[in-house]
Amino acid sequence: MALSTRLTEQLGIKHPIISAPMAMAAGGRLAAAVSGAGAFGFIGGGYGDATWLETQFREAGNAQVGCGFITWSLRNKPELLTQVLDKKPRAVFLSFDDPEPFASEVRASGAVLMCQVQTLRDAQRALDVGADVVVAQGAEAGGHGAKRATITLVPEIVDLVRRVKSEALVCAAGGIADGRGLAAALMLGADGVVVGSRFWASREALVHKTLHDVALIATGDDTVRQSVTDIVRGHAWPEPYDIRVVRNAYVNDWVGRERELRQVAAVERERYAAALIEADATVAAAIAGEATGLIHDIVPAAEIVERMIAEAVVAMQSGVRHIG
Amino acid sequence: MALSTRLTEQLGIKHPIISAPMAMAAGGRLAAAVSGAGAFGFIGGGYGDATWLETQFREAGNAQVGCGFITWSLRNKPELLTQVLDKKPRAVFLSFDDPEPFASEVRASGAVLMCQVQTLRDAQRALDVGADVVVAQGAEAGGHGAKRATITLVPEIVDLVRRVKSEALVCAAGGIADGRGLAAALMLGADGVVVGSRFWASREALVHKTLHDVALIATGDDTVRQSVTDIVRGHAWPEPYDIRVVRNAYVNDWVGRERELRQVAAVERERYAAALIEADATVAAAIAGEATGLIHDIVPAAEIVERMIAEAVVAMQSGVRHIG
Repeated sequence: MALSTRLTEQLGIKHPIISAPMAMAAGGRLAAAVSGAGAFGFIGGGYGDATWLETQFREAGNAQVGCGFITWSLRNKPELLTQVLDKKPRAVFLSFDDPEPFASEVRASGAVLMCQVQTLRDAQRALDVGADVVVAQGAEAGGHGAKRATITLVPEIVDLVRRVKSEALVCAAGGIADGRGLAAALMLGADGVVVGSRFWASREALVHKTLHDVALIATGDDTVRQSVTDIVRGHAWPEPYDIRVVRNAYVNDWVGRERELRQVAAVERERYAAALIEADATVAAAIAGEATGLIHDIVPAAEIVERMIAEAVVAMQSGVRHIG
Repeated sequence: MALSTRLTEQLGIKHPIISAPMAMAAGGRLAAAVSGAGAFGFIGGGYGDATWLETQFREAGNAQVGCGFITWSLRNKPELLTQVLDKKPRAVFLSFDDPEPFASEVRASGAVLMCQVQTLRDAQRALDVGADVVVAQGAEAGGHGAKRATITLVPEIVDLVRRVKSEALVCAAGGIADGRGLAAALMLGADGVVVGSRFWASREALVHKTLHDVALIATGDDTVRQSVTDIVRGHAWPEPYDIRVVRNAYVNDWVGRERELRQVAAVERERYAAALIEADATVAAAIAGEATGLIHDIVPAAEIVERMIAEAVVAMQSGVRHIG
């Protein structure tokens, strides 16, 4: 069984599902597993580390994968984009901040340019600089994001694209972890979905078991958008972005006291770094979104893809039976 | 054309669309127009005014309508529920705070009990007190709400209901303003949708033209959840609820300075009340959600219902054509 959309045509894939380029968590093994299952996998270039990228592309082997970057961070290390484009990735995924400085280099390479946006205004900008795919990301997403919700942002951007650049594609991101979410995104007019948390909770993700365990227990009520996790990791995220994680003792302790945290940041950064190494989930955060409440097992990425397609087909076939 | 679901069966209606009981804006004319179009309309009992309720039920005539209340406010005037139940409404809609104090009176009357919730935890509570329909409301909604997003909250509550009380129904609310949103909600497992902003922007809504004009121009980026609008209207909303409105000069001026606003609240309340009477949209807020970016005209409620059904059918029929 398969679902064909403009996205599957454009990327030459079978299923309109993309694994998000989650910084640190989405390595070459996950990307290759997703692409191997007929969907499309991204390596999460994140804040950018040349050696890590080499390792992850090696892990991906001959699989057709893409690479994502945090755009504002890439501005400090633009040579990483050239390094990645030399590997002829099928697509490059730019998130957070103006993609303009990198858009022409990506397009000249022949890679598909995917720009993730959090507002209608940023979608217009992405189209202006030549994005092939606009990823409309709602705030329910895990990890970094902003304020808009998927269910309104997607159709509003679909309408914008139809008006100004109808050859561009739209993907939905944020809160999509099963086939019901995939089917819903298609109803909203999306050509496909970008899935983070569900692949973060896969066997191939570079995530420690204790953090997976936290996410498996959590409901969607248990996540929060906040900045504590960035402050203690030393990441200077610009407005309006913050990061959704599953609440733990550390986050509960510091949310609302960010100014105070910044004053003791040197000490807390060491503490947090140690907690990451020890996988102490009372301090280190599980970076998952509201969809964590829909995730109940850690399975291979290929199984996630298969389930999502099967569920989406069932949902859509049931849907048309309502028509009378 | 019609869409049949468990909700249409339960309420004896043709289309699984419910107009939200928007305080002040949803009067008897709107409720009757929605019900007359084969969907189901609610009068927005809001903070509760016996005379206003009498007038609105009279305006609704013989139409089968329901009535909604703000639960924490109803606790101060519980006699209003009895007044309304005497009119034999088909359904009662309770939002915001524990429905327990009123659940048995509603159920004993034979009215369908619909409880709107903003978290998984509150959904559990609604089921415990005997809700017939749980309305899962995402934060993208206009007016009052909390934090969760529709696209994750709906399927998570659908799963809960399936586990603990499968005869209960689930409706989706928040961000649904067209047939794409309706189709998406059905994919997520909802039995129907509760629609606010789109009916707020109807001919029959009790909303002044200048506020409608603000919403027609706004995109989804232009709305904000905040408390300024409650402070200046003198409504003491409990945590965790706040109110989404379209940004205007007044909101932009005061958001972030709520403590200061409370100190001058007496003066500002008069100013706000005057602005409401004059329909000065630089001060008085248009109470619409992120879906305002999907709304481009003020039309009769019946036309909204017809369009939503036609669009949802197209979306679902296109959806199954992706299957291959």
